[in-house]
Amino acid sequence: MRVRLERLSLNQWTTRRWSVAEAVAGCVRHGLPAIGLWRQNVAEQGLDETVRLVKDAGLRVSSLCRGGFLTAPDFEADNRRAIDEAAALEAACLVMVVGGLPGVVPGEPLGEISRDLPAARERVAEALALLAPYAAERGVRLALEPLHPVYCADRAVLSTLGQALDLAAPYAPETVGVVIDTFHVWWDPQVFEQIGRAGREGRIASYQVCDFLSPLPDVLLGRGMMGDGVIDFGPLTGAVAAAGYAGDVEVEIFNADVWAADPDEVVATMKNRFERLVVTRV
Amino acid sequence: MRVRLERLSLNQWTTRRWSVAEAVAGCVRHGLPAIGLWRQNVAEQGLDETVRLVKDAGLRVSSLCRGGFLTAPDFEADNRRAIDEAAALEAACLVMVVGGLPGVVPGEPLGEISRDLPAARERVAEALALLAPYAAERGVRLALEPLHPVYCADRAVLSTLGQALDLAAPYAPETVGVVIDTFHVWWDPQVFEQIGRAGREGRIASYQVCDFLSPLPDVLLGRGMMGDGVIDFGPLTGAVAAAGYAGDVEVEIFNADVWAADPDEVVATMKNRFERLVVTRV
Repeated sequence: MRVRLERLSLNQWTTRRWSVAEAVAGCVRHGLPAIGLWRQNVAEQGLDETVRLVKDAGLRVSSLCRGGFLTAPDFEADNRRAIDEAAALEAACLVMVVGGLPGVVPGEPLGEISRDLPAARERVAEALALLAPYAAERGVRLALEPLHPVYCADRAVLSTLGQALDLAAPYAPETVGVVIDTFHVWWDPQVFEQIGRAGREGRIASYQVCDFLSPLPDVLLGRGMMGDGVIDFGPLTGAVAAAGYAGDVEVEIFNADVWAADPDEVVATMKNRFERLVVTRV
Repeated sequence: MRVRLERLSLNQWTTRRWSVAEAVAGCVRHGLPAIGLWRQNVAEQGLDETVRLVKDAGLRVSSLCRGGFLTAPDFEADNRRAIDEAAALEAACLVMVVGGLPGVVPGEPLGEISRDLPAARERVAEALALLAPYAAERGVRLALEPLHPVYCADRAVLSTLGQALDLAAPYAPETVGVVIDTFHVWWDPQVFEQIGRAGREGRIASYQVCDFLSPLPDVLLGRGMMGDGVIDFGPLTGAVAAAGYAGDVEVEIFNADVWAADPDEVVATMKNRFERLVVTRV
């Protein structure tokens, strides 16, 4: 199994200034075969228009970001819409960022919140039970994304790959898979064991790469271009490939400097770093 | 088993402006029975003078912070000195912050580093094998502190309680134990299971409490007074008590606002919050 340049996908938030139309054109211009889309950008472009753009460009949609925030009271209608959008785009998966403690709003001061973390995790499991049949009917794969534990309170009570696989276990692998994002999982002492398990259980829905900067300039925007941080990509990519994953590899970078740079230069650097640091050689 | 006010210990960095002498006097003034000391403050006060101060005040030294940084080339001599100091102070344990990836310096831009995380973890195990016999001879207990995964690159490649217990396993529990710090472990899906295991294996050397703020104002200084963040202290304290821990409970808060406040007010608030949120009722 190999991970090669032919599998490189641009997650559109890496070139955040680009609209969907601009990002699609950018992928074509740089010879990239796939794109990861964000719902708010798709909404701005229009869903039908986006479907047409990616189809005309011959791009695969490696993921749609994102469904989730399942610990909020009003999660259901919006997640059903997200599933419909993923179906229309024929996205390989709908990334699910499951949400933090009930009441915690990312970036805002704490108000009335629940501090019961086990209960929040239980709530995620219950919400998934509601949504999975709907996703299965529409042929959409929900991809549970464990987020770095630094986001446990405000973005995802799902903190490890092992926990994501436990959560996915009751469902068919084609309906509920997991995202392996290097930024989120690189520190985990069990990561290689759990990547192997994810492969055996047929659950790897997406492999995303970006680096972990040190010092971390910002909790949300501390992601970096591969090679600018502390992650050793070779062994992680090797493990994902050995686990049987043959899908697209998305580069998703949240970083103020990257966002401020010329998007075409960002894509050129991304291709170069990907080829040098991420692809498997054998 | 109960955790009560009679077990509350002031970690001196919670009142960082205080010297050792001032912190000792503060503990006496506020009726606290124990203090957690930091090596640089002890050095400023003088080791012999510190020994005399805590003895005269009748305080227990609940911990000495810190040994560690075992992934640096020159770890050995300094850690032997730290062990000697812990012995002189009759500290309940020497807290070990094991260090990050070789070459990474906290707060500084990356230079020549190693990105091989499994190798760094192996290096920690080898360093511990060198130091444990020396600690055992002097009757000092090394307390391995798993740090929140956000510090994996720059401060501790030891990221979970389970990993700390695996690392401690070859040694007698009175020589190598673990620190359970709420800030570092609250997010861990396995935390209750691993606290139980730590109790069964007789490894709980220290229980430290402080809150995890959200939004995190700063990666290093995002710790808060209990009640100001997202942690549910009751279940964690209950689990630690049920696991048989009957030692002191340190409050260690790294926070610019707390450090700027009047230390006597900080201690008064700490006692109040501890009694309201941390002690076990039964």
